Amino acid sequence: MTALKGNLIFGQSGGPTSVINASAAGVILEALEHPGLIPRVFGMHHGIEGILHDDLFDLSKEDRRELELLCGTPSSILGTCRYKLEDPQADDGDFERILEILRKYDIRYFFYNGGNDSMDTCSKVSRYLQSKDYDCRVIGIPKTVDNDLFGTDHCPGYGSAARYIATSIAEVWHDTHSYKTPMAVVFECMGRHAGWLAGASALAGVIGRGPDLVYLPEVAFDQEKMLADARQVLRQKNVVLISVSEGIMTADGRLVAEQLSSRATDAFGHKQLGGTAALLADLLAGELGVKVRGIEFSLLQRSAAHCASGVDIEEALLAGRTGVKAAMEGASGVMMGYARPGHGAYRCEIIQVPLEEVANREKMVPLTWINEEGNGVTRDFIDYALPLIGGEPHQIHEEGLPRFALLKKIPARPGV
Amino acid sequence: MTALKGNLIFGQSGGPTSVINASAAGVILEALEHPGLIPRVFGMHHGIEGILHDDLFDLSKEDRRELELLCGTPSSILGTCRYKLEDPQADDGDFERILEILRKYDIRYFFYNGGNDSMDTCSKVSRYLQSKDYDCRVIGIPKTVDNDLFGTDHCPGYGSAARYIATSIAEVWHDTHSYKTPMAVVFECMGRHAGWLAGASALAGVIGRGPDLVYLPEVAFDQEKMLADARQVLRQKNVVLISVSEGIMTADGRLVAEQLSSRATDAFGHKQLGGTAALLADLLAGELGVKVRGIEFSLLQRSAAHCASGVDIEEALLAGRTGVKAAMEGASGVMMGYARPGHGAYRCEIIQVPLEEVANREKMVPLTWINEEGNGVTRDFIDYALPLIGGEPHQIHEEGLPRFALLKKIPARPGV
Repeated sequence: MTALKGNLIFGQSGGPTSVINASAAGVILEALEHPGLIPRVFGMHHGIEGILHDDLFDLSKEDRRELELLCGTPSSILGTCRYKLEDPQADDGDFERILEILRKYDIRYFFYNGGNDSMDTCSKVSRYLQSKDYDCRVIGIPKTVDNDLFGTDHCPGYGSAARYIATSIAEVWHDTHSYKTPMAVVFECMGRHAGWLAGASALAGVIGRGPDLVYLPEVAFDQEKMLADARQVLRQKNVVLISVSEGIMTADGRLVAEQLSSRATDAFGHKQLGGTAALLADLLAGELGVKVRGIEFSLLQRSAAHCASGVDIEEALLAGRTGVKAAMEGASGVMMGYARPGHGAYRCEIIQVPLEEVANREKMVPLTWINEEGNGVTRDFIDYALPLIGGEPHQIHEEGLPRFALLKKIPARPGV
Repeated sequence: MTALKGNLIFGQSGGPTSVINASAAGVILEALEHPGLIPRVFGMHHGIEGILHDDLFDLSKEDRRELELLCGTPSSILGTCRYKLEDPQADDGDFERILEILRKYDIRYFFYNGGNDSMDTCSKVSRYLQSKDYDCRVIGIPKTVDNDLFGTDHCPGYGSAARYIATSIAEVWHDTHSYKTPMAVVFECMGRHAGWLAGASALAGVIGRGPDLVYLPEVAFDQEKMLADARQVLRQKNVVLISVSEGIMTADGRLVAEQLSSRATDAFGHKQLGGTAALLADLLAGELGVKVRGIEFSLLQRSAAHCASGVDIEEALLAGRTGVKAAMEGASGVMMGYARPGHGAYRCEIIQVPLEEVANREKMVPLTWINEEGNGVTRDFIDYALPLIGGEPHQIHEEGLPRFALLKKIPARPGV
């Protein structure tokens, strides 16, 4: 493979995480270290839409210190999007435009950071550019708090969200157990189809501060069974902590949130927006007659950089850096994935996964990692997830507030 | 004042905070350093109820290292209660029992850590013991995330909750501003009557990541004005972040939460439990037609020891330690308060406030610290609150999870 000289472009897509910017730092900082091969680094403003609108930033002009601060800055610093490209066979307008912009800025390295939809985008771009004989290395960098990407042991963003959830539940455990009053608390974690985050709440059980009942979307939710389980825990412990995925469904495939809320109409005559936690807490109050709290982690769980996992940050950074090295060595059409080699102490290796293997697929929690009662996870799940929340978070503070990266975001111009 | 020899008892009361256990550490560790004067240290199991039921712990038998870990352990390690003592003139049964137990365990130092109700308890105990000529030093240690205690510049627990709220909002700011989609987010902070915590959300504005609109219960809430304000912010910024106290009320003195929820009946025919954030988010969705999120900080804000303010922890510890020193020197019937002397750099001094000045009173946010529009706080508020969230949190972690204090909680026996 001959060395390919040209500029690099990087974009972020889909829902943000606490460490997506750490991957950005990895890609940008590594690329800037190879000016002979990669003269300039561009950023897409709002992902692929930034290319379509010729709305790019010149990241070569950012201060190095600010780029390093990206590791403690949550969400997508360049802006994100949910734009889904058409199949180029049906409509190649978007793709023609992408190629036009790549030529305009002499871009030969295309990096896209996102979930399975974004890997689909990446895959389509890669195949289109090949079909047009435009030499460009296309690399996907994974991210998603949902941890549901195929082809990788785990996803950047998951460990931090998992740590935040486990830590918060352990702290609330102390709060609820300080009272003599019987109480039920329902925590709601993200995860429409895969229960990785709700499962992570069980990590608090490692220090004896975990939820008593955990419900994942991989197993059909039975309301009567849950009420019976909660009643039993209350009798034994006086407090019951319940953690659920937002996407839990009953056996008939209907979302619990929809079933409970469809019975209620709000003040404005339209369907109540209440989350699963609030609705289940309401149900528990009515059926068990105890004090309840519904706590939805909402956007907090994917933004809480102050409680990020050090392991997650390091790995997200590494995925970015390794991606650039791999691309310079010839890799293209692949996503940087994680592998966990062998047994023994936790280690993480970066692997290359063909984009088409990742695109539009979802990885669920294995059913063997969910207990027989369907209300908790097994030791295998804990052994899998615990190493991912390790390491110290390293956010910089000034006057008690996070010192986030401040980018200049200078509009890009073609030429040198 | 002659030296008073006898044992010390400590109890926690009311709603927990992130640092109430730091004050516990202060009292216990300081007392254990004076075995000549204070031979033993007891803890009340569930506050004053622990005395009434003769349910005490012998804290002299705890490991020092675990007592130090209390500074990173949220909530009330000894258990809390909301028991309110009768007026001893009307019914002195509880007080007779308290005196009986104090005599049984030779207790001469009575420490109670709580809010204004707890200072009322403390005050009544102090006067009763005096009336019975039982020589005992009675000291109140303040705590409340609500920051509404009279006679003190601020309250232990407030700075940590304030830091958590400001940090979380700043992080969610990044999340919402990464999209092109118009969006409204409503954050709900604790504070039934005083808006100190909702006001603290404006601290995120110091780094340009604050809420656009902040509503405190000190000012009447006008729904139409809020909708107009939100519309205007949306037009300018595409995203509007709104922070409210749970206790915001309209001019007629009715809670906004009750007014909105009274229009809706839930699935079980009883009044919907939805919090103010969810209800206002629902209102904004209906009226402005934008994507919304209601985020209630709920128990998280008073439990988040992982995001505690270092200043808050140090001061909570100091209040405990200074209280013991003051009691040994003769102080009684007082609460350890905070004063902020002079101008210039922030400093905090411990002062003694007569318990009856604190009991059953609430300190509101001064109206001059709320802007004319009634939708934000002034620079005076920021200058007041910012120093309280400073300092690094110092929670110890093991495998990515907090290492909380583990007390043996050995039941106390009278005698040596």
